[in-house]
Amino acid sequence: MIQTSPTPLAVAGPTPPRPLPLAEHLRSDTLKAAMLVQQEALQATRDLLRGRGFTELLPPLIGPVTDPGGRGAKALDVDYYGQRYRLMTSAILYKQASLRGFGKLFYIAPNVRVEPPETAETGRHLVEFHQIDVEIADGTREDAMRLAADLLKAVVERVWERVPQELVGLGRDRRAFAELLDGPFDRCTHAEAVGRLRALGHPQSPDAEIDWTGEERLSRQAVRPFFVTDYPKGSRGFYDRQDPDRPGVLRNFDLIAHGGFGELVSGSEREADYAAIITRMRESGENPAKYQWYLDMVREGIPASAGFGMGLQRLVRFLTGLDALWQVSAYPKLPGVLAP
Amino acid sequence: MIQTSPTPLAVAGPTPPRPLPLAEHLRSDTLKAAMLVQQEALQATRDLLRGRGFTELLPPLIGPVTDPGGRGAKALDVDYYGQRYRLMTSAILYKQASLRGFGKLFYIAPNVRVEPPETAETGRHLVEFHQIDVEIADGTREDAMRLAADLLKAVVERVWERVPQELVGLGRDRRAFAELLDGPFDRCTHAEAVGRLRALGHPQSPDAEIDWTGEERLSRQAVRPFFVTDYPKGSRGFYDRQDPDRPGVLRNFDLIAHGGFGELVSGSEREADYAAIITRMRESGENPAKYQWYLDMVREGIPASAGFGMGLQRLVRFLTGLDALWQVSAYPKLPGVLAP
Repeated sequence: MIQTSPTPLAVAGPTPPRPLPLAEHLRSDTLKAAMLVQQEALQATRDLLRGRGFTELLPPLIGPVTDPGGRGAKALDVDYYGQRYRLMTSAILYKQASLRGFGKLFYIAPNVRVEPPETAETGRHLVEFHQIDVEIADGTREDAMRLAADLLKAVVERVWERVPQELVGLGRDRRAFAELLDGPFDRCTHAEAVGRLRALGHPQSPDAEIDWTGEERLSRQAVRPFFVTDYPKGSRGFYDRQDPDRPGVLRNFDLIAHGGFGELVSGSEREADYAAIITRMRESGENPAKYQWYLDMVREGIPASAGFGMGLQRLVRFLTGLDALWQVSAYPKLPGVLAP
Repeated sequence: MIQTSPTPLAVAGPTPPRPLPLAEHLRSDTLKAAMLVQQEALQATRDLLRGRGFTELLPPLIGPVTDPGGRGAKALDVDYYGQRYRLMTSAILYKQASLRGFGKLFYIAPNVRVEPPETAETGRHLVEFHQIDVEIADGTREDAMRLAADLLKAVVERVWERVPQELVGLGRDRRAFAELLDGPFDRCTHAEAVGRLRALGHPQSPDAEIDWTGEERLSRQAVRPFFVTDYPKGSRGFYDRQDPDRPGVLRNFDLIAHGGFGELVSGSEREADYAAIITRMRESGENPAKYQWYLDMVREGIPASAGFGMGLQRLVRFLTGLDALWQVSAYPKLPGVLAP
């Protein structure tokens, strides 16, 4: 089970501050420090992944179709030479396709998700954000989980080595990361997490993603990041692979930060079988005809794989201990709020 | 004047090859080699710029307004919570605004420009591309030109140090870069370039950008990259600063590769004065009311600056000697062609 602490260090604040006007935000010391942390986090990411033989590719911004997953978020449409194209909500389909030539690959991928306006106050949602998006041909969920943990540890070590003054200046305490660096991350299944939340009186559905409030409660109780595995099928996109021995259970995971900072990573083994993908699309209400280029590619053959996306701004918020994602984006766009 | 050679090494081919289907392209040896070159080029870029005190920021993808410059290219519109927003054709306005907090900054910026379909065959246009986008507070055009030249040289040195087999495998000859590494880049004014082209019988307008054919002719004659400076006012965006001593002439530059690969960089000193920007907007047919957030920022004060954008795919094409930009993009989108 997840190791918990009654008094975690430097937890996320309960109500995030409201955003500054862009003119003030851009010259704030907070943003400056956060951008220096982000820069080191990205360099640590590239060093670790390239050192393990991953190639960095630049993902597309628009395409005929994008990732339909996501809790209530919508994609933006554009008119592309007379056809409806969409901005990428994630580049998962391109990651899988690219495994044909690049067995270990990553993107620093910009994504746009039109979240419902009521998420503007969570401190955890931005319409424009980035993911460290990793995929491993012939990889297992274990491989992806190990890599995500190694990556998080490498980033934490690097930022405390290179920009400690910035972190301390933002109020972060190095001791908040001691348990993270010390041992392996705990893990529990989605069913176990649901059980724990229900025991706390939180009405978590067993058939859905852990909701934000529930995730935050678990996150606040933990002393180091922890994995939640085995989400139910209906809660994720068609590309997360179903456990062949346990229909309805996915071979996927989230990595949840401690201290109330919530989800940092979502990952899974992927479906790579044409018939299985068609079935999963239909089950999740997606029309396979929309996914022609992707299905053509799958029919020609893509490797089995596992991978994950680590939310970059969520990572930087966790590193810096700041209260809201807008504080770690140079040009933040909060859901429902018109901003440059 | 520009040093020319009757037989430049490894020039760009006259008619670029037609694109492969994505499934073949992604597993081609050509793309694999190009992506390894791109990865090293980006690392060399970050090493050089961070070593000189630049901070890397992540640019926005969409905003209420974008760069109106560009030869005939259009921006894509999206419906952003009921308002018309546009995909960035370049993030120049955000670069200027960000100087308030970050005196030396850069982006690896994804841009989308809906180019006319007739540019699909030039080998030099993609709808989705990236720029190495650099800005220097209180910098002069000289500073920006020197930095662009240093950056190009550092990238060339790095890729020949790290991925020489890939370059040779693509048919590139190290000797094609000997003159580039050897001495300072030549420069001429736009007026001089027009004169040279007219002397060759090429009908170049003195009031416009050098057209592609003209640029290519100059590029093929050169043995190392060269600068063209002092473009006429009507040929560029409102943000390129007008020479105070020579009305109608801009304090800007392009850096043109040798060997037929054409423009790699566009840069300039920037207008930072509110009244001057309003005038320049009106002169170029832009409605200042559309640029409210930017003009508010200018009114609060932004530093004078100089900067440039280096086309990443054009850079990688030049490094690799490939015939067309689609060969150096993992997910190429040619103008007017529907592709994933």
